[in-house]
Amino acid sequence: MPIIDFRLRPPARGFLGTKIYANAANRDRYTRRLGFDPAPSVQAQSMDMLVAEMQAAGVTRGVVVGRTTATLGSVPNEDVAAIVADHPGLFVGVGSADTTDRHRAVAMIEECRRLGLAMVNLEPGVMDPPLRADDRRLYPIYAHCEDTAMPLVIMAGGGAGPDITYTAPECLDRMLADFPKLTVICSHGGWPWVQEMVSVAFRRPNLFLCPDMYLIDLPGMDDYLRAANSFLAEQLLFGTAYPFCPLEPYVERFMRLPLKAEARERILWRNADALLGLGLAAA
Amino acid sequence: MPIIDFRLRPPARGFLGTKIYANAANRDRYTRRLGFDPAPSVQAQSMDMLVAEMQAAGVTRGVVVGRTTATLGSVPNEDVAAIVADHPGLFVGVGSADTTDRHRAVAMIEECRRLGLAMVNLEPGVMDPPLRADDRRLYPIYAHCEDTAMPLVIMAGGGAGPDITYTAPECLDRMLADFPKLTVICSHGGWPWVQEMVSVAFRRPNLFLCPDMYLIDLPGMDDYLRAANSFLAEQLLFGTAYPFCPLEPYVERFMRLPLKAEARERILWRNADALLGLGLAAA
Amino acid sequence: MPIIDFRLRPPARGFLGTKIYANAANRDRYTRRLGFDPAPSVQAQSMDMLVAEMQAAGVTRGVVVGRTTATLGSVPNEDVAAIVADHPGLFVGVGSADTTDRHRAVAMIEECRRLGLAMVNLEPGVMDPPLRADDRRLYPIYAHCEDTAMPLVIMAGGGAGPDITYTAPECLDRMLADFPKLTVICSHGGWPWVQEMVSVAFRRPNLFLCPDMYLIDLPGMDDYLRAANSFLAEQLLFGTAYPFCPLEPYVERFMRLPLKAEARERILWRNADALLGLGLAAA
Repeated sequence: MPIIDFRLRPPARGFLGTKIYANAANRDRYTRRLGFDPAPSVQAQSMDMLVAEMQAAGVTRGVVVGRTTATLGSVPNEDVAAIVADHPGLFVGVGSADTTDRHRAVAMIEECRRLGLAMVNLEPGVMDPPLRADDRRLYPIYAHCEDTAMPLVIMAGGGAGPDITYTAPECLDRMLADFPKLTVICSHGGWPWVQEMVSVAFRRPNLFLCPDMYLIDLPGMDDYLRAANSFLAEQLLFGTAYPFCPLEPYVERFMRLPLKAEARERILWRNADALLGLGLAAA
Repeated sequence: MPIIDFRLRPPARGFLGTKIYANAANRDRYTRRLGFDPAPSVQAQSMDMLVAEMQAAGVTRGVVVGRTTATLGSVPNEDVAAIVADHPGLFVGVGSADTTDRHRAVAMIEECRRLGLAMVNLEPGVMDPPLRADDRRLYPIYAHCEDTAMPLVIMAGGGAGPDITYTAPECLDRMLADFPKLTVICSHGGWPWVQEMVSVAFRRPNLFLCPDMYLIDLPGMDDYLRAANSFLAEQLLFGTAYPFCPLEPYVERFMRLPLKAEARERILWRNADALLGLGLAAA
Repeated sequence: MPIIDFRLRPPARGFLGTKIYANAANRDRYTRRLGFDPAPSVQAQSMDMLVAEMQAAGVTRGVVVGRTTATLGSVPNEDVAAIVADHPGLFVGVGSADTTDRHRAVAMIEECRRLGLAMVNLEPGVMDPPLRADDRRLYPIYAHCEDTAMPLVIMAGGGAGPDITYTAPECLDRMLADFPKLTVICSHGGWPWVQEMVSVAFRRPNLFLCPDMYLIDLPGMDDYLRAANSFLAEQLLFGTAYPFCPLEPYVERFMRLPLKAEARERILWRNADALLGLGLAAA
């Protein structure tokens, strides 16, 4: 069975200058609070070790999610494309765009398209100024993505903003209602507003949740799982948020979750396969 | 043991023109996402079949909840009264009122009273303009209901509004505090704000929750049940939200919920019996 | 094993004039809704009986939390200090301050310090006017506490305000971000915003949650416990909210919670010991 990791930031190129690698102590503190030990590949900043860890964990494809932020660092879209090119068949690239200037954002989105990146990632809560997902200043960017069929990844959960209101469920609920043809993947799955965000997904079929690092053994897990075993199976995505979670231990804990077989398969790869147009199901 | 279904919209008269019957595809999609197959009586729009399904499910009384909305359709109060009259002893009627004009609302409430309807249903989130339950424009209507001892049903959960803030727990919390003698039944039980709405019920003894279609196997269920087995037993109501859920399969799944016997009895009929003054407990 | 009860209001001195003793019917109604019978010591308003009940329950230290409120009554800081002095080794005192006047608040905080009280309790939601924890008018008080290393207890959960927004998670999240060196203990643990408040603690290491009366068998418990068995073990505190919960029955139910041994020990006494500088771990 394939496994598609929908949030993976490898130790390569521009990622090494972003906070998740530059501030190892902060990152490892998160990792340990989540009940994991840091992965060897993370500590060594080794792509070879990461590739080996992916194989050991059975992760067949990693979605390399770039970022353009004020507080967590940035990765040029070219770097994301280069990482994908360096490892044929192993990664899928998601670029990013600057949310503070709509013209620059559109230019970066078109750059992503030219570079063959599958989607665009926005992290408006950690920009300067920080914005909530339903901020009107983002709407021209959303409109462009909807009009040009560019799916969005958006970080709207975890510490995505100066305070917890930046991940409040109404932000995504409103923008999804206003752009019903826009496909949106929510990194961190809207955690901790789990009961609420899962209901947003119930209302909005164009929303996909990737709870990633905030899924296993954390508050809200029971609600994610209950939803995953019913209506949400088609809208949940597997992700490790690597380098925050080590791959093999994460997969092991994930496999022990009480999920129906069909739901597990959808979450691990079928939903992502369809979103990314990888054609794995057909193969 | 009697079973009182506190949210049932039969396939008869004005209900057939409302969205839940007029848009069968949308309705059936909801039904299936909740893990049910649509009821035969719904598909056939047959009252005879509904009556048979009620008998098979052990539902001894259905609360026929009318509506006056901008987006989901409307049912005249006379129609609700006629359905009750057509089937002696089987239904209890709840009328509805227009929330956009306080004079018209009061006139409709008095109409409900003349027609022998037990309560009035308001669905302010799906009116034009949509209003939250604590909107000042609703306060004259609440004041009239409180002053004339007319209990309110209010839809404040599920998709009751343009976005999830229309079901936010503070809306009901505030209006209940401001009208402490008003009896309020919350359709859809405040879902998905389950942890929060259950605490509102803890504070406000005049609030009754009817989670109906959003109860079984959905996120938040564990919190509803934990509350049901302690303080909330006296403030929870059974409902199927028919035509969304088929009666017998819903009752079967409900009966498997880990509820204390006394709590189950209260939820299935004792609380509703007392609210509606049916006198079943005395009989 | 020691047990430190982080919220205990004994039947003595000024406490007897506050609502929790003056309105016995209201208090006992709460107690029963939480699944307990009122403690004999509460009914008799007897300190001797309380001391005996503490011994029977194994509660080795009670944190006597004073209050200055508009709606629930007030206890002079001298009274808290006197209760501590009357029972050497049994209690730790937490004074309180008036949140409506920053000069008076600072004077009362300094009074607490002079009296040897360990912390200051603020209950801004039940003052006149009621304030949320992130209200700018409280910021001079927080600044004084942070600058003088005075830890704060704050009631931000349960019925702490006119409506549920007074306990909304963003209130504490913002003030903790703005005062990162201030130690804050949240009475009532942010209930019912459990999923959200636990995530605030994940982000803010200077926050400690004491869910006390809102922990056992209530909605949200599973999320508290899941967090307690992972990252939150170091930030949770045991409390009975006596006189709301009787000591021995509460401890018995607490001991049956599925907590890891190390987490239980931290919650029962190690975290409180460190916060209060009691030196029990060293002894």
